[in-house]
Amino acid sequence: MRTVCVISTGGTIEKVYSEQTGAVQNLRKKVERYFRRLRLPDTRVRIIQLMNKDSLEMTDTDRERVLSVVRKRLASRAPIVITHGTDTMVETGLLLRKRLPRLHVPIVLTGAMTPLGFEGSDGLQNLTESLLATRLLPPGVYVVIHGQVFPIDRVRKDRKRARFVWTHS
Amino acid sequence: MRTVCVISTGGTIEKVYSEQTGAVQNLRKKVERYFRRLRLPDTRVRIIQLMNKDSLEMTDTDRERVLSVVRKRLASRAPIVITHGTDTMVETGLLLRKRLPRLHVPIVLTGAMTPLGFEGSDGLQNLTESLLATRLLPPGVYVVIHGQVFPIDRVRKDRKRARFVWTHS
Amino acid sequence: MRTVCVISTGGTIEKVYSEQTGAVQNLRKKVERYFRRLRLPDTRVRIIQLMNKDSLEMTDTDRERVLSVVRKRLASRAPIVITHGTDTMVETGLLLRKRLPRLHVPIVLTGAMTPLGFEGSDGLQNLTESLLATRLLPPGVYVVIHGQVFPIDRVRKDRKRARFVWTHS
Amino acid sequence: MRTVCVISTGGTIEKVYSEQTGAVQNLRKKVERYFRRLRLPDTRVRIIQLMNKDSLEMTDTDRERVLSVVRKRLASRAPIVITHGTDTMVETGLLLRKRLPRLHVPIVLTGAMTPLGFEGSDGLQNLTESLLATRLLPPGVYVVIHGQVFPIDRVRKDRKRARFVWTHS
Repeated sequence: MRTVCVISTGGTIEKVYSEQTGAVQNLRKKVERYFRRLRLPDTRVRIIQLMNKDSLEMTDTDRERVLSVVRKRLASRAPIVITHGTDTMVETGLLLRKRLPRLHVPIVLTGAMTPLGFEGSDGLQNLTESLLATRLLPPGVYVVIHGQVFPIDRVRKDRKRARFVWTHS
Repeated sequence: MRTVCVISTGGTIEKVYSEQTGAVQNLRKKVERYFRRLRLPDTRVRIIQLMNKDSLEMTDTDRERVLSVVRKRLASRAPIVITHGTDTMVETGLLLRKRLPRLHVPIVLTGAMTPLGFEGSDGLQNLTESLLATRLLPPGVYVVIHGQVFPIDRVRKDRKRARFVWTHS
Repeated sequence: MRTVCVISTGGTIEKVYSEQTGAVQNLRKKVERYFRRLRLPDTRVRIIQLMNKDSLEMTDTDRERVLSVVRKRLASRAPIVITHGTDTMVETGLLLRKRLPRLHVPIVLTGAMTPLGFEGSDGLQNLTESLLATRLLPPGVYVVIHGQVFPIDRVRKDRKRARFVWTHS
Repeated sequence: MRTVCVISTGGTIEKVYSEQTGAVQNLRKKVERYFRRLRLPDTRVRIIQLMNKDSLEMTDTDRERVLSVVRKRLASRAPIVITHGTDTMVETGLLLRKRLPRLHVPIVLTGAMTPLGFEGSDGLQNLTESLLATRLLPPGVYVVIHGQVFPIDRVRKDRKRARFVWTHS
């Protein structure tokens, strides 16, 4: 039995529709319920619900909290998946890369363009891919999404097309 | 083969999530695709996509357009389902009741608290119930939603609880 | 708050796929979980899991058990929905009609052609319709399925087309 | 834009429920429709519907056909996913490994314990994982399923537990 540590920080992937406001909001946690739909006979997924924020509202202090939890978890030698809003996912990933120079496991950031459980959502696909990627990737910080795998210093979000693309070297 | 006429006017039931804005909006029609999921061997559902508006934005002119289309369709003697935003559904229904005094078929208004295709949506349930109700109800104007059937002059929306309730006589 | 009594007897609507045998079988109860997906703010659904049989395997004794439970439940004055295999649904319904001559509530039999939760299933549609029908139908025994409502002495299954049709008078 | 070649051979992952027989059977193709649900902005999935068989009914001739198609496709240098019944997936994979000694791409075999689109199906998870695995694995023949990655000569199916496990060395 191997363990993967999932740190949930919010973002679109966690959003729910509020019948009172008619808006999608980060109100309740959702990621755990969807992970449970995956069949993972040799993997234990441990989920840490760290915060539930739209990534545009994440502050430097929030990012330091992510870093601090990641640092603690690294001691267990389990690979890490971080679910995160897509708008500042790369920023958080770059901080981790800079401050954690001697990684011995992969850290995978992922999220979604459409919330989990909404028609056409890419959320469960991205969770599935990220878990598998922690099995196959060498140590380092990555974005895994839409069947793509990017080292964190080579990726940016293309907002108009709602996808991630390579940065030019 | 009987025919039911569905007039779609928008509302939450039709809303889609926009990946560009992160908001739910009335951008594309949706109701027809969900009606096609129902198994209705002896019923032909004819859908008229009249408008696609949040019901808080419906104007008096919009309501007159609904009335005008309903009036035309009544000639065919087919019962009518109107999908509508829940906030002003009763207002539109009361207008129909007042201006169409000698109905010979039921007119059923319905909608949803959560858009079709979103986790926990009540939309397909309400479409299913409304179609069946057109088979069993006598002529008149009704709201059919959440397993409930209300004559249009006896119902109001309870926004806090996201449901419809009886008005006091 | 009104109450509807649901008596579950099995049939295709309850079948699950067995990974060990590769067949669909009546192994676990399923109907209750799907009823819970419906939004029914003024209705209490009480489910009695009576048996879980393919309706081709139902015996006369089984039908007497259904009759006996229905009789007991009628005392509460709550309408009754019976989920049942489609192949002998009419036979059970005719027995109820014959032996319960003075009904004061509707008894609705329903089921499905494809099990609940399988792609293209008609199960949840039929549950939704049956619950609403108990609200609108006069006392009597009925089959409600696929947007259709049949008095029990006017209906038969058309196996080839996987639907119910009117019998000729 | 990269290309992945998918060769569909049938198995449980492709099975559909037949309303006429009440059994699950390999009657219509299904895999393509589910691949289309995945968001893959930089990958073209080319699907070859080779056969649609329960893997217990696959003959030596069938396996030679699979080998022959794989051999042809290898010329394009695109990685290959083969959807296959789980009971003899390893047998087919071992044949490919033996007869294709100098692979330059990964060949991934996958399938499902419960058909695509049935409640609790592992099918879409396995398709998602297999596609990502073709991106990260070195040349060779593998089974990818349930978050696990097995070289073809190290894996067997555990039928009772409906999963794949490592063989002892």
